[in-house]
Amino acid sequence: MITKQIFPLKYIFNEIKISLLIVTLIGLVVDILPVFFPDFLPDIPISIATTLGIAISILISFKVNQSYDRWWEARKVWGEIVNDSRTLVLQLKMYVEPDDPVIKSMAYRQIAWCYSLGQSLRKIDPFKNLGGLISDSELEHLQSQKNVPLGILNFQTDSIKKQFDEGKLDGFSRLQLEGTLARLTASMGKCERIKNTVFPTTYRKGLHLAIYLFVIFLAMSEPLRLVVVLEVFILVIISMVFFFLEKAAFRLQDPFENQPTDTPVTSIARTIDINLRQLLGETDLPKPIESDDFYIM
Amino acid sequence: MITKQIFPLKYIFNEIKISLLIVTLIGLVVDILPVFFPDFLPDIPISIATTLGIAISILISFKVNQSYDRWWEARKVWGEIVNDSRTLVLQLKMYVEPDDPVIKSMAYRQIAWCYSLGQSLRKIDPFKNLGGLISDSELEHLQSQKNVPLGILNFQTDSIKKQFDEGKLDGFSRLQLEGTLARLTASMGKCERIKNTVFPTTYRKGLHLAIYLFVIFLAMSEPLRLVVVLEVFILVIISMVFFFLEKAAFRLQDPFENQPTDTPVTSIARTIDINLRQLLGETDLPKPIESDDFYIM
Amino acid sequence: MITKQIFPLKYIFNEIKISLLIVTLIGLVVDILPVFFPDFLPDIPISIATTLGIAISILISFKVNQSYDRWWEARKVWGEIVNDSRTLVLQLKMYVEPDDPVIKSMAYRQIAWCYSLGQSLRKIDPFKNLGGLISDSELEHLQSQKNVPLGILNFQTDSIKKQFDEGKLDGFSRLQLEGTLARLTASMGKCERIKNTVFPTTYRKGLHLAIYLFVIFLAMSEPLRLVVVLEVFILVIISMVFFFLEKAAFRLQDPFENQPTDTPVTSIARTIDINLRQLLGETDLPKPIESDDFYIM
Amino acid sequence: MITKQIFPLKYIFNEIKISLLIVTLIGLVVDILPVFFPDFLPDIPISIATTLGIAISILISFKVNQSYDRWWEARKVWGEIVNDSRTLVLQLKMYVEPDDPVIKSMAYRQIAWCYSLGQSLRKIDPFKNLGGLISDSELEHLQSQKNVPLGILNFQTDSIKKQFDEGKLDGFSRLQLEGTLARLTASMGKCERIKNTVFPTTYRKGLHLAIYLFVIFLAMSEPLRLVVVLEVFILVIISMVFFFLEKAAFRLQDPFENQPTDTPVTSIARTIDINLRQLLGETDLPKPIESDDFYIM
Amino acid sequence: MITKQIFPLKYIFNEIKISLLIVTLIGLVVDILPVFFPDFLPDIPISIATTLGIAISILISFKVNQSYDRWWEARKVWGEIVNDSRTLVLQLKMYVEPDDPVIKSMAYRQIAWCYSLGQSLRKIDPFKNLGGLISDSELEHLQSQKNVPLGILNFQTDSIKKQFDEGKLDGFSRLQLEGTLARLTASMGKCERIKNTVFPTTYRKGLHLAIYLFVIFLAMSEPLRLVVVLEVFILVIISMVFFFLEKAAFRLQDPFENQPTDTPVTSIARTIDINLRQLLGETDLPKPIESDDFYIM
Repeated sequence: MITKQIFPLKYIFNEIKISLLIVTLIGLVVDILPVFFPDFLPDIPISIATTLGIAISILISFKVNQSYDRWWEARKVWGEIVNDSRTLVLQLKMYVEPDDPVIKSMAYRQIAWCYSLGQSLRKIDPFKNLGGLISDSELEHLQSQKNVPLGILNFQTDSIKKQFDEGKLDGFSRLQLEGTLARLTASMGKCERIKNTVFPTTYRKGLHLAIYLFVIFLAMSEPLRLVVVLEVFILVIISMVFFFLEKAAFRLQDPFENQPTDTPVTSIARTIDINLRQLLGETDLPKPIESDDFYIM
Repeated sequence: MITKQIFPLKYIFNEIKISLLIVTLIGLVVDILPVFFPDFLPDIPISIATTLGIAISILISFKVNQSYDRWWEARKVWGEIVNDSRTLVLQLKMYVEPDDPVIKSMAYRQIAWCYSLGQSLRKIDPFKNLGGLISDSELEHLQSQKNVPLGILNFQTDSIKKQFDEGKLDGFSRLQLEGTLARLTASMGKCERIKNTVFPTTYRKGLHLAIYLFVIFLAMSEPLRLVVVLEVFILVIISMVFFFLEKAAFRLQDPFENQPTDTPVTSIARTIDINLRQLLGETDLPKPIESDDFYIM
Repeated sequence: MITKQIFPLKYIFNEIKISLLIVTLIGLVVDILPVFFPDFLPDIPISIATTLGIAISILISFKVNQSYDRWWEARKVWGEIVNDSRTLVLQLKMYVEPDDPVIKSMAYRQIAWCYSLGQSLRKIDPFKNLGGLISDSELEHLQSQKNVPLGILNFQTDSIKKQFDEGKLDGFSRLQLEGTLARLTASMGKCERIKNTVFPTTYRKGLHLAIYLFVIFLAMSEPLRLVVVLEVFILVIISMVFFFLEKAAFRLQDPFENQPTDTPVTSIARTIDINLRQLLGETDLPKPIESDDFYIM
Repeated sequence: MITKQIFPLKYIFNEIKISLLIVTLIGLVVDILPVFFPDFLPDIPISIATTLGIAISILISFKVNQSYDRWWEARKVWGEIVNDSRTLVLQLKMYVEPDDPVIKSMAYRQIAWCYSLGQSLRKIDPFKNLGGLISDSELEHLQSQKNVPLGILNFQTDSIKKQFDEGKLDGFSRLQLEGTLARLTASMGKCERIKNTVFPTTYRKGLHLAIYLFVIFLAMSEPLRLVVVLEVFILVIISMVFFFLEKAAFRLQDPFENQPTDTPVTSIARTIDINLRQLLGETDLPKPIESDDFYIM
Repeated sequence: MITKQIFPLKYIFNEIKISLLIVTLIGLVVDILPVFFPDFLPDIPISIATTLGIAISILISFKVNQSYDRWWEARKVWGEIVNDSRTLVLQLKMYVEPDDPVIKSMAYRQIAWCYSLGQSLRKIDPFKNLGGLISDSELEHLQSQKNVPLGILNFQTDSIKKQFDEGKLDGFSRLQLEGTLARLTASMGKCERIKNTVFPTTYRKGLHLAIYLFVIFLAMSEPLRLVVVLEVFILVIISMVFFFLEKAAFRLQDPFENQPTDTPVTSIARTIDINLRQLLGETDLPKPIESDDFYIM
């Protein structure tokens, strides 16, 4: 998540430099061609370009909207993970005797699940940060799992079953705890859905095509047949706004790509870590994740 | 689901070739008619065409939006199917004795349901991939069912009832398992709703009509009365953007048509297959579905 | 629901013929008036008409969107009715002894409720198709009810109470069945809400006003002062797109009006009929509703 | 709720007369000023006004959309009140012995709650229509309550507690009834939220400002410098569309203001009144609310 | 929340004064440069500026829409807090003996939670208004908590556990109370999500960039090369509409910033305070929060 209002120009430029290069080339070609083939490219009315420009604005706005919805949904799911993690510990404290070690072991496993889910979604090491949160035998078993967070949830299920079988949990309480685990399973599935569903590429290609057409028609527009340098400059500036917004939308739509625009899953997992430890009454707390860069992960 | 950012131009072209042919014909007719009937088709101001063009952009954007919502809803429902399938097995492991064969038989039947639902929605053989997942007597009974996945859910219900009647399941647990089955019934119904509800055709016809009108008015616009070849080329290029986006929307709105743009139900069912087998502790897992084409099903 | 991609031109034309007649009259008046009063109607710039045209496109798109949402919500509610009807029978099979006649009588009553609700919403005979599904004494009692489907739900409630009082149903099961009935009550209420809430008429009037103003300003636009016949033709063609889309929206927003664009409630009720009978193990099934026209009801 | 497709022109005109007067003044000033100060107000290109016009259309469309959502949400909440009122009585009939007077007294209190909530939201007498529905001692107690409907819900809670304490209600049933009361509490809170949340005024002011700017720029546009009367007429006509739609949105966004465009809460409460009495088996029913005006309340 | 339809012009002006200053400078530079370098800045067609203007309107409308959704979601969450606070007390009155002091202590703690959550979200003293609502020992313990409202919820959990352990609460009732606490935990998490999630800054920057480009292109447009003062005036006026709306959106999107446009959390907490005390039967009530300014907090 980009946290600063001012972020490096370099970052923005890097995102769209290839597109701007293509626009520059189009501008130069359209301006230089008539020198050699004077009758090849006629002037066309500027209203065709402006119509395309408005059409593109509308399409980009809708795309930003849909990408924003995906990004916001991802953030909402992680908000629910925060809520259900807290609820899980509050429920354990309500249903289980205060000195039962299962409270601490399940709370720690829940913290481990949050870290592991964030890492899995970004396709990086799902075992990072798990030291001290999960027993060694469990860690070993997870090595063979294709879906590590699902394996952790499986252990949570086992713990609850064991509590119930030993008579330390009644039917009502098991039902409520099971409900919380079902919601966490659902949240995990929602994140995987957002991660694995490719935003319709045909749609994006249609939009890109329209932007380049706009540039070509604008370059050929009669009232812009001014000095070459200025025309190319105007083309680049205007198309930059479109490319920049399209790229911003593109970044929003995939929020688990290990990019600065990601949903800050590591940071949220750390917040859960701190909250759950305070609910357990611990005083030796980890530090919140801060950043000396323009974003947090 | 189209997975590659670059997909064959042939695919795109195939989708809209008939529309582009009609546009070419319109362009030729409008350009050639005045040769024989000079006073028949007057020049009209280009602003009528550009207004229509902006109107079409707005309408297409809304249509893309609604089609996207249908497509995203279909994907969400299959995400819920993933979640509820996992939850069903976690619940069975929590409520039933670990060595009870009902865990495995219900988990396998759940996998069968996922495969079968995907095939039914695409109107292709609902019994594919079911070998080894469902008993022969059940398979035979399903042959007479008009709705095979509903028949499988019926067997799941029977299994739970049997467990309860034999005293292997208490009231709370039955309630939770029944709730999960009810959610799976609802997910199935949602898919059927999306499959069986024709997107309002009147709306689409109005949009098509507007695009062809736009082409005609643009062809008749005074500033475009240039060389015939160039004018037809411009008409085709601009209308191509509209037709392409409209077709992209059309493909999105019907996500169970056995098309490359489908929700990848077979691939999702396979993921469920792998997940449930790992939850059962099996190590001989099927492979995830991959594709050497530009899409997965 | 219109099911065919190609539907009769007559149907479309019938929907908007009055509006097109008014446009023709406006065109003729604006063109003929100056013959008698040459200075009365000055030429005005076409950009006023095109601005209005774009404004109308935006407004119509939003209206189509809202109407579509109403239509889709109506379809969703009927999808939930499908799901809850199936769930009701699956629950009965799970909770009640297999040979108890209450399963069949409640399933049949549920089918009756679906048919009756569809008919009530369309303000036509709510007792059609009910023969053989409901006992004669119940049918007689329903005659005096202002809200027949609510009366049927009342009988379902009585049946569950009777089962519980006779000790054939435990507390958990009653709770689940009661929950399903509450969801069906809610679905009925949602349909009634859509049926009884008039879409804001002020909004629609504002849009109509804008379309006629657009026609007047376009008719008075200087560049269109061509041959009378052609001008009127252009006016009719362009306004036709607007009126057609507006009418399509209007039809979508009221999905229970006994019109071809209705939510196909009779056809859905028949699907429920077939599904529930198959769940009961019956083999003598009614036929799905098909249509030899361009729509199904 | 406005129920008639045709409603008095007077009603529309009354809503926007002040705005139209201001537009007329602006038109006159802009047209007359140059007579005295010929060089003060230069002609400016009409494209500035048309751009503003399109911008305003977009903004108004979004505002209509948001206002519509508020209005539709208000209607939905009252739909849920209908559903939960019916469900409450169906639950009582299921859980309580048929001859227990608590069924009738709670059903009547529920009707009273609906009437009272509607009146409270409109800031008019919350005790109207309550005669015969609530006992005198309860009515007296409610006099001191700042929130009368909340006081009524409090009595419903007391009734359920009393039934349970007397052993006439088991734990399951209390749980379900309590859930229905919680949903009714939530519906009340939702109405209060819509009532008490002022739609962002800054947004509305920005829109008004833009409309008046549009009028000024349009008045100063060169191609419109025609006869004064005609120009003012055109200004009034075009701005009328904007003001009318903005006012329609404004009326939609506040649906509990004792205006013709209100959600018809009294009429809905009466429908609930009739439904609940029929569920109780009564035959002496009140009449539905009808109107000889163009709206119902 | 801004409550008055008329609010100080000073407030509006303060919000956008820097942007307007920059626009003035741009206008002056573009107008004065040609005096020294006559060939440097050519006239460009106004249609480029108007296209950008329409594009900006579309983007701003979408942004206002998304900001409005955030603001409305924040208000909805606080509406749910109202509902669940009332429900909590109604549940306590239903499940616990009337003279048990836990009803009063939990109701007071709930009031404290509401005040404290509002203050925490605004990053101001979370202990304000808590005097008399929470015991001194609890207050002391909260001092060390990083998340004070979560600490208060923890005490509520303890109270319920204690009631249950002492046999004053049955299993059903604990389940329902725990559910209400889980919903309150979720509401708190939703507020924190809105507070901590930075609205995508890239998107905003793209929009700002577009507005300044629009101003530059409009300043260079040929038909506007009038008197310098007038041109700068027009630039400022038109860009003012854009900046004002963009700023209004910006204020809406962050509703817990201790600004006049905030969700009025203190005022809502006071309403809850009054409601809960009346449900307890108290007559010495605090006053609702009123304002002699143009907003309430």
